[in-house]
Amino acid sequence: MSAEGPAPLARLVAELARLPGIGQRTAQRLAFYILRAPDEETAALATAIHEVKEKVGLCERCFNLSEGPLCRICSDPGRDQATICVLEEPADVISLERTHEYRGLYHVLGGALSPIDGVDAEDLKIAELGQRVDDGGIEEVVLATNPTTTGEATALYVAELLRGKVRVTRLASGLPIGADLEHADEVTLGKALAGRLSLD
Amino acid sequence: MSAEGPAPLARLVAELARLPGIGQRTAQRLAFYILRAPDEETAALATAIHEVKEKVGLCERCFNLSEGPLCRICSDPGRDQATICVLEEPADVISLERTHEYRGLYHVLGGALSPIDGVDAEDLKIAELGQRVDDGGIEEVVLATNPTTTGEATALYVAELLRGKVRVTRLASGLPIGADLEHADEVTLGKALAGRLSLD
Repeated sequence: MSAEGPAPLARLVAELARLPGIGQRTAQRLAFYILRAPDEETAALATAIHEVKEKVGLCERCFNLSEGPLCRICSDPGRDQATICVLEEPADVISLERTHEYRGLYHVLGGALSPIDGVDAEDLKIAELGQRVDDGGIEEVVLATNPTTTGEATALYVAELLRGKVRVTRLASGLPIGADLEHADEVTLGKALAGRLSLD
Repeated sequence: MSAEGPAPLARLVAELARLPGIGQRTAQRLAFYILRAPDEETAALATAIHEVKEKVGLCERCFNLSEGPLCRICSDPGRDQATICVLEEPADVISLERTHEYRGLYHVLGGALSPIDGVDAEDLKIAELGQRVDDGGIEEVVLATNPTTTGEATALYVAELLRGKVRVTRLASGLPIGADLEHADEVTLGKALAGRLSLD
């Protein structure tokens, strides 16, 4: 017995501590919880870990997460087939879907351009997006990369690539709903001012 | 595809969110990490979850966590066999062992007396502690239950039970090392004052 308890417990603590944002103490707390939890619950967790790796891949058209060759959004004839929303990561699809405001298709780039980190256009699914537009039937591409330096650079790059082929739009920047002006940073406030809408 | 992504991902998020202190957002972040992590790493995590449940039980003498009938501390002839440190939970053994200051045996009660929560003496391993003392060879019992209402009540109960049979001591209460007086609560400061030591 090491100071960390029986070997299987120490191993579980070590594995949990590899997860992002989980420190040694949290890992120990979780390990003790798992040790005491009902067998069904922990078996379900272990199975869910296995299955997510086995069953979830990327959609071959939009590179969103998918259980089959095409994701459920690409396979859904009820979606607006003429609009593509361009995102950095699969997690962003979940955020967009939660709004229930978007009914078009997606295209997940798999990151943002960042030459300093060695991420160039060939490392992202940008050519594949160009191909989808070239294949025809697309009326609008909504650029929804993050409002960060790399996300903006990526949006500009993609917009340039698609110029003249299709209508290209960008998500609005501005004050988050519920925020107050006093605490808004000056860049966000400047964007909100520049993008002000008429209420007529 | 629900708003939460492919079903296996949604299941993993749901299972992770059942862990204590893991909210929906953290669960989603962890699930995406697991989805992208190398297979060896996630397989090791799933295996560690299985193994901790299969291989770790309780020591039949001290009720510490153990891979066999007797834990490694009870099986270690190098430990001081005449001293028993009484703790509430197996996790507390790990905390004590980390100090490298204690060389005796342990006895894990499995909780603290709390009639309001329906935890009575019969729900804890108190009778088993009495039996270990009655079996002889024990010179000192160190009560190291938590310095909380229930932990103190448990310590008093056990001390009463063992009165006259063995030397019974209690962990010192006082200021934590590195704390400053200005921020100490008055109960801790009172305990530190009452337990003051001579520096002669």
